[in-house]
Amino acid sequence: MFVQPVPTLRRDGESVVILDQTALPWRSVERRLTTLEDATEAIAAMRVRGAPLIGVAAAHGVALAVTAATDDAALDRALAALRATRPTAVNLAWALARMEARLRPLPARTRREAAWAEAAAILDEDAATCEAIGAHGLDLLRALPVRAGRPLRVMTHCNAGWLATAGAGTALAPVYAAKAAGIAVEVHVSETRPRNQGLLTAWELAAAGIEHILIADNAAGLLLARGEVDAVIVGADRIATNGDTANKVGTYLKALAARESGTPFHVAAPVSTFDAHAASGEAIPIEERTSEEVLSVTGCNGDGKPQRLRLAPAGARAVNPAFDVTPAALIAGFITERGVVTVACLGEFLRSAG
Amino acid sequence: MFVQPVPTLRRDGESVVILDQTALPWRSVERRLTTLEDATEAIAAMRVRGAPLIGVAAAHGVALAVTAATDDAALDRALAALRATRPTAVNLAWALARMEARLRPLPARTRREAAWAEAAAILDEDAATCEAIGAHGLDLLRALPVRAGRPLRVMTHCNAGWLATAGAGTALAPVYAAKAAGIAVEVHVSETRPRNQGLLTAWELAAAGIEHILIADNAAGLLLARGEVDAVIVGADRIATNGDTANKVGTYLKALAARESGTPFHVAAPVSTFDAHAASGEAIPIEERTSEEVLSVTGCNGDGKPQRLRLAPAGARAVNPAFDVTPAALIAGFITERGVVTVACLGEFLRSAG
Repeated sequence: MFVQPVPTLRRDGESVVILDQTALPWRSVERRLTTLEDATEAIAAMRVRGAPLIGVAAAHGVALAVTAATDDAALDRALAALRATRPTAVNLAWALARMEARLRPLPARTRREAAWAEAAAILDEDAATCEAIGAHGLDLLRALPVRAGRPLRVMTHCNAGWLATAGAGTALAPVYAAKAAGIAVEVHVSETRPRNQGLLTAWELAAAGIEHILIADNAAGLLLARGEVDAVIVGADRIATNGDTANKVGTYLKALAARESGTPFHVAAPVSTFDAHAASGEAIPIEERTSEEVLSVTGCNGDGKPQRLRLAPAGARAVNPAFDVTPAALIAGFITERGVVTVACLGEFLRSAG
Repeated sequence: MFVQPVPTLRRDGESVVILDQTALPWRSVERRLTTLEDATEAIAAMRVRGAPLIGVAAAHGVALAVTAATDDAALDRALAALRATRPTAVNLAWALARMEARLRPLPARTRREAAWAEAAAILDEDAATCEAIGAHGLDLLRALPVRAGRPLRVMTHCNAGWLATAGAGTALAPVYAAKAAGIAVEVHVSETRPRNQGLLTAWELAAAGIEHILIADNAAGLLLARGEVDAVIVGADRIATNGDTANKVGTYLKALAARESGTPFHVAAPVSTFDAHAASGEAIPIEERTSEEVLSVTGCNGDGKPQRLRLAPAGARAVNPAFDVTPAALIAGFITERGVVTVACLGEFLRSAG
């Protein structure tokens, strides 16, 4: 079982302690959340991020809310505030729906214990889900034709590792499983502008002792064309029932280049990431974030202190869609906790997953 | 005729004054080159950059060298030093070959005037070439189906505008021609990590009064898929005789996404960018630059002063290929000073261009 080097989110009495991801990769800082507002701010400001972890954090936000206020409307206030934090990741809505289903039937003053228990269950199940995704993904990696004498080379995008979950991650779970199985593996980590979540991936891989190489997002096409990548694995924020997948912007470009080079491109995600209400990618809302993320960048000065710099002169305009949609036709398969499923078998898989 | 808001390179007596592009987009600083070493440093450090301007600068570097030293070996030293500055742009070798052909037959002590004259001719011809590329590209833009009431939307990558040449640019020359013709045009400018030449493009478009929108490199796929782009035009550093095109890394990903969305993808370049010795992209050397470009970034602090920040923690590894190769099959046509040519007609075009 994968153990997170630092827990991404843990309960501490009647508060929640998160690893504040906005301070990474320069500083490892924990932050205590004690109110609903703390939780909504942490999700909206991406102190916790990654679709599965957003769901776990939202569940704990509900627990904080019904602990602080025992009036009947507290639950509704919490659900509405948390639902409004981020639009694309379906795990958020999924976790909130599950909390609501558990708590709604209970008298308001008795919801507190049930809320903490349900949030803990969601967290524990997420860790188990990651573990299962890792095991199924490892089978895929073992089946790849790899030349002796060099490591297995996996390319990923953004961060879909342990930082994005309560366990081993989604896209990176097979990598951690490979390492545990004694397979030499090396990860090509795409910077993932504008928020540079690739640096989170580099940080978490370093913390877990996995070899990795950073690349500019632009370099992915060349590396794939040169045959320097054995497999591409990414996470997902929402998957339509036809297999179209919303994930961090730039994923689609990697999927196109993977197809062109004959490199298998897989999406790793829990079954909860499939959205029964989205028949295709067109039904998935794409979050537009502030242009400031494109017009400036956070780095670290000589003192190890994070610092924000402007990249563009004053007056520059930018657009900043945070996700894109990779059409199902570009995806070799989905690595879920219930096994690997191809697009052709997705309908039957989702019916049986119910 | 397009007039550069600031000359990218100009002769001043027996020295050369360049606009130092490493200070852009924050400060507009001129720099005087008086020796061969100044010229090689300016090219290698990308104070002058862009394939056509590299050729112009190299020619002036030869003039500086044969002005400073009149021994017979001065020419050979200059050619060797300048040739070693950057490997991918063929215009460098082309300009040096032209200088050599002009100067080699002359006695060493009489090369000086001829060198300055030939360098000036290369500069003037580059400006004329840009103008012709703009005119031919404008015909293409006029033929695009564009909805009334909104501007023509052109996506580019890196910087292939006036900053990259001695004239109106290559990829952006049609944009400037469109503006001069009264056509409303808007440019999607890709950031172009790791060196962020997209910010140079934003700066030069602002200086020329053209509407533009910055995007993260990752966002290009989504914008193309959404139909928000009417045409993609990029420059080139070297084009094989089969049409495979080396250009700034990330170009290939845009070409893939353009094909997928049915958006025309054109390469704008002078005929001198075609390399008769490269039968396909496999023959084009790809420059590998320092990993520091990926591991850090230059921005601007509150005082307007450029500052370099680390992005990745110490010990992180990166690879940094500076170019990629876009296969000819993805290219709708080449916009040259002699007209627009499709891949199918390229062989005949190059034979007639001699």
